[in-house]
Amino acid sequence: MALRACLRTKPGLTGLLSQLSSCSSHGAARMSPALVAQRRSSSTSQKIKVDFDQSTGVAVMRMQSPPVNSLSLEFLTDVCIALEKLEMDKSCRGLIVTSSQPKVFSAGLDILDMYGKSPEHCVEFWKAVQEMWLKFYGSNMITIAAVNGSSPAGGCLLSMTCDYRIMADNPRYSIGLNETQLGIVAPFWFKDTMINTVGHRTTEMALQLGLLYSPAEALKIGLVDQLVPEDQVLTTATETMTKWLAIPDHARQLTKSMMRKPTIDKLTSNREADVSNFVKFITKDSIQKSLGMYLEMLKRRKA
Amino acid sequence: MALRACLRTKPGLTGLLSQLSSCSSHGAARMSPALVAQRRSSSTSQKIKVDFDQSTGVAVMRMQSPPVNSLSLEFLTDVCIALEKLEMDKSCRGLIVTSSQPKVFSAGLDILDMYGKSPEHCVEFWKAVQEMWLKFYGSNMITIAAVNGSSPAGGCLLSMTCDYRIMADNPRYSIGLNETQLGIVAPFWFKDTMINTVGHRTTEMALQLGLLYSPAEALKIGLVDQLVPEDQVLTTATETMTKWLAIPDHARQLTKSMMRKPTIDKLTSNREADVSNFVKFITKDSIQKSLGMYLEMLKRRKA
Amino acid sequence: MALRACLRTKPGLTGLLSQLSSCSSHGAARMSPALVAQRRSSSTSQKIKVDFDQSTGVAVMRMQSPPVNSLSLEFLTDVCIALEKLEMDKSCRGLIVTSSQPKVFSAGLDILDMYGKSPEHCVEFWKAVQEMWLKFYGSNMITIAAVNGSSPAGGCLLSMTCDYRIMADNPRYSIGLNETQLGIVAPFWFKDTMINTVGHRTTEMALQLGLLYSPAEALKIGLVDQLVPEDQVLTTATETMTKWLAIPDHARQLTKSMMRKPTIDKLTSNREADVSNFVKFITKDSIQKSLGMYLEMLKRRKA
Repeated sequence: MALRACLRTKPGLTGLLSQLSSCSSHGAARMSPALVAQRRSSSTSQKIKVDFDQSTGVAVMRMQSPPVNSLSLEFLTDVCIALEKLEMDKSCRGLIVTSSQPKVFSAGLDILDMYGKSPEHCVEFWKAVQEMWLKFYGSNMITIAAVNGSSPAGGCLLSMTCDYRIMADNPRYSIGLNETQLGIVAPFWFKDTMINTVGHRTTEMALQLGLLYSPAEALKIGLVDQLVPEDQVLTTATETMTKWLAIPDHARQLTKSMMRKPTIDKLTSNREADVSNFVKFITKDSIQKSLGMYLEMLKRRKA
Repeated sequence: MALRACLRTKPGLTGLLSQLSSCSSHGAARMSPALVAQRRSSSTSQKIKVDFDQSTGVAVMRMQSPPVNSLSLEFLTDVCIALEKLEMDKSCRGLIVTSSQPKVFSAGLDILDMYGKSPEHCVEFWKAVQEMWLKFYGSNMITIAAVNGSSPAGGCLLSMTCDYRIMADNPRYSIGLNETQLGIVAPFWFKDTMINTVGHRTTEMALQLGLLYSPAEALKIGLVDQLVPEDQVLTTATETMTKWLAIPDHARQLTKSMMRKPTIDKLTSNREADVSNFVKFITKDSIQKSLGMYLEMLKRRKA
Repeated sequence: MALRACLRTKPGLTGLLSQLSSCSSHGAARMSPALVAQRRSSSTSQKIKVDFDQSTGVAVMRMQSPPVNSLSLEFLTDVCIALEKLEMDKSCRGLIVTSSQPKVFSAGLDILDMYGKSPEHCVEFWKAVQEMWLKFYGSNMITIAAVNGSSPAGGCLLSMTCDYRIMADNPRYSIGLNETQLGIVAPFWFKDTMINTVGHRTTEMALQLGLLYSPAEALKIGLVDQLVPEDQVLTTATETMTKWLAIPDHARQLTKSMMRKPTIDKLTSNREADVSNFVKFITKDSIQKSLGMYLEMLKRRKA
C-alpha cells in the first residue's frame, strides 16, 4: 500500500507492480515448477538482477546501478518491487543481497533526490526509503548481506536490515552511518536499527561522529558478523544460508518478527510525521547548501 | 496465588503448599535456631534436594529428576514450592542451583507435558513455567547457577534467571535457547531474559538459529560469567556467593528489583494472553507432529 | 528553572545566577570578541576553574574542591552555573571536565549533605544532583571527561554523562557506581545512564555488587573509552576534541539529543517522585546509621 503510494508519480511502474502483485497473489505454488523456474530466472529491472534458484529456495539480488548503487527513488522502487515479488513466493526462503558494482555495496541514499528537488519529490523519495527499510527489516525470508564493497549511510542501513552480514576483508572498504559528516541526521529508525545491531553506546558515538569503520573495526563492534577474502563473499553467504535454511521457517519467522516488531511498529505508526520531519529538514536552505557543497566536493574528487 | 492456580489439578501438592505456606508465614525467625536448622536440612521432594546452611545463610538446590532434570509440571511445582519456602525465610540470603544428574544441568521443558496432552493440561503446565521464571527472576535472594552440564532451552532459561552463572569447562556441554530447532518459538519473556543477558543482536541470531553454545562460546557472548573445571563448579559458586553476601541485602535487593521489574511486569500483566498463545500454538496439528517426530528421534538415539 | 528552585535557600547564589543568566541571554555573540575573551578567562567560583579558549571554542572545567571534589550542594550549584553559562555561549562548542585534585576525579556525592541533615536540605541537595545530571547528559556541547583519578559513585555518573571518557592508566584508580557497598541504592537514572554506556547485563552485576573497576577493567567493559598515561590525559582529551569539532554542530546536536532524550525525559517527568523517594530513603534510621558508620570508617582510615 505504502509502496503504491510512493509510486503515485510513476504510472508506468505502478502498472508493473499491479501486474506482479496479481501474478504473485495467484501464487507460484500453483504453477508448474518449470514455469516458475523460467519466471524466476528473469531479472526484474535493469538496475537489479535477481536470480532465484528453485532447487535451494534461495534468491540472489545483485544491485547493478552504476556507478555506486545509489539508492535513488527509481532504484528503491525497483528493489521494493523485486523484494515484494520474492516475499510473496512461498518457495523463496532466503535472499542474498550483493553488488555487481566494483568496490561498493551501496553508496547510500541518492543525494540528487534530496538536492534542489520539490518538497513533493522529497516526500515520494522518503516514503520509498521507509518502504525499503520496512520490507527488508520485516522480511519473512532469511536475508544475508554479502557486503562486497563500501557501504556508507543508506548502504549500511540496508545491510543492517539483513539477518547476517558478511563483508569483504579489504581495508579500503568502509561501513557506517556517516550522516553527520554531511551535516544531516540519521532518522530514529536508522538509529534504532543500529542500536539493535551494535548496542546503545557504540551507536551513540558512531552516529555523533558519523564514523565509517574498516571491515576489521566493523567486525569488532558487531556491525558485520564475518569477514572473508573478497572473492569468497558470495560463496560464504551461500554456505551460511544453508545453515539458516535448516531451521523450520515457521518458528524462525515468528522469532524474527518477535525480535523486530517493536522497532518496525515505531516507524509504522509514525510514518507521516517522519516524512514531514525529513522534508522540513532537507529543504532548509542551510541543509541544501551543505548538500550542494558536498556534491561539489564529489565532483572535484572525480576530476 | 498463581502457583496455587497451577496446582488446581494436584490436590495432594496443594495440601503440601498450604502446609508450607502457613509454616513459612509464621516465620523461621520465631522458631528456635535448632528447630529451624532441623527443618531446613530436610529435602522438600524426591526430585529436588535442598540443603540450607544456617551458618552461612546459603541454600543449595540440587535437581535430581532422572534422567535429565526435565522441567515437567510436577518438577516445576516442586521447584517453586522449594523456592517459595526459602524466599520466605529471611535467614536464607543466597541460593545455589545445580544438578545431581551427570552431564546435564537441565534438559529444559518436558516435552511429554506438551505432546498429546489436553489444552487444560497445557494451561497448567505453562502457568507452572511462568511461575518458575517469575519466582527465580524476581527472587530477593542472591541466585547463582552452578551449571555442571548441558543446559538447553528451559535449562538455559533457568540459569539466566540467576544473578551469576558458573559453567563446567567441558566442551561436550552446551547451553542456549534452541527452541526453533524443534520447530517451536521461545516466548517473549524468554527473549527478554536473553536480551537482558547478552544484548539484542546476539539474542536475535541465537533465537532465530536456535543456537547451542559451547562453554567457551557462551563465556565469550556473556551467556555465562565464568568457566571452571567440572569438579570445581560448586566450590566456585560457594566462593562467589561469599563476595555477593558482603553487600547489604536491602540495597542489593532494591537494585536487583530496579533492574528486573520492567521485564517481570511485562509478563505479569500478560500472563493470561501468554498462556492462551502457548496453548493455541502447542496444540496445533503441525506443532504436535513436529514434537512427535522429535520424540521419535530421541527414542531412536537412545536405542 | 529547576536550578533556581534548588537554590531557593541560597539567596546569594540565586543572585549570582540571575546575573549570569541575564548576561548570557544578551549573548556573547553581540559582544566584541575581545570583551568575550576577557569575560571567559575568569573562573566562575573557587571550587571550579573554567578556562575557555575562544580560538578553539573549547572550555576546560577543572574541579578544585579539596580534598576529593565531593559533589556537595554548594559545589554542584557552582558546576551547574558554570555549565549553564558555557551552554548559553554559542561560541563554546566543547567542554573538557577534569580534576585539579591529585589522585581523584571526583569522590561522588558529598555524604555530609545526606547525613544528619533535615529533609528540606536533602530535597535541595537531590534537586541539585538531578540538575547536574540533566545539564551534563543533555548538553549541546561536546563533553569529554578527562578522568585523571578515581571516580566512584557520583564521580562515575558525572563522567558517564560525557560524550567520551579518557582515563589515566593508573591501576590505583578505580571507577564505578559502588552505592550498594555503602548500603544505598543508585537511582533509576544512574542505572539508565550506565545501561546506555555498558549495557544491561554488565550494569546489573555492577550495580548489585557496587563494583569499582580498575582502568583496564573499565576499558574492557566500555565504561571508559580510552586509557592513556596519567600525564597525557588532558592533552589526549584536547586532541580527541579536535576530531569531534570536525562534525557540524547542528547535525551532531540533533543526533545526541535523539540518543539521549528518552532517558532524559524519564527523569524530567519524574523529578518530584524521585526527590521524594530519595529523601524518604536517605532519612531512614537504618540508612543514616549506615552512613554514620561509613563516615567513621573514613575518619579512621585517615587517622
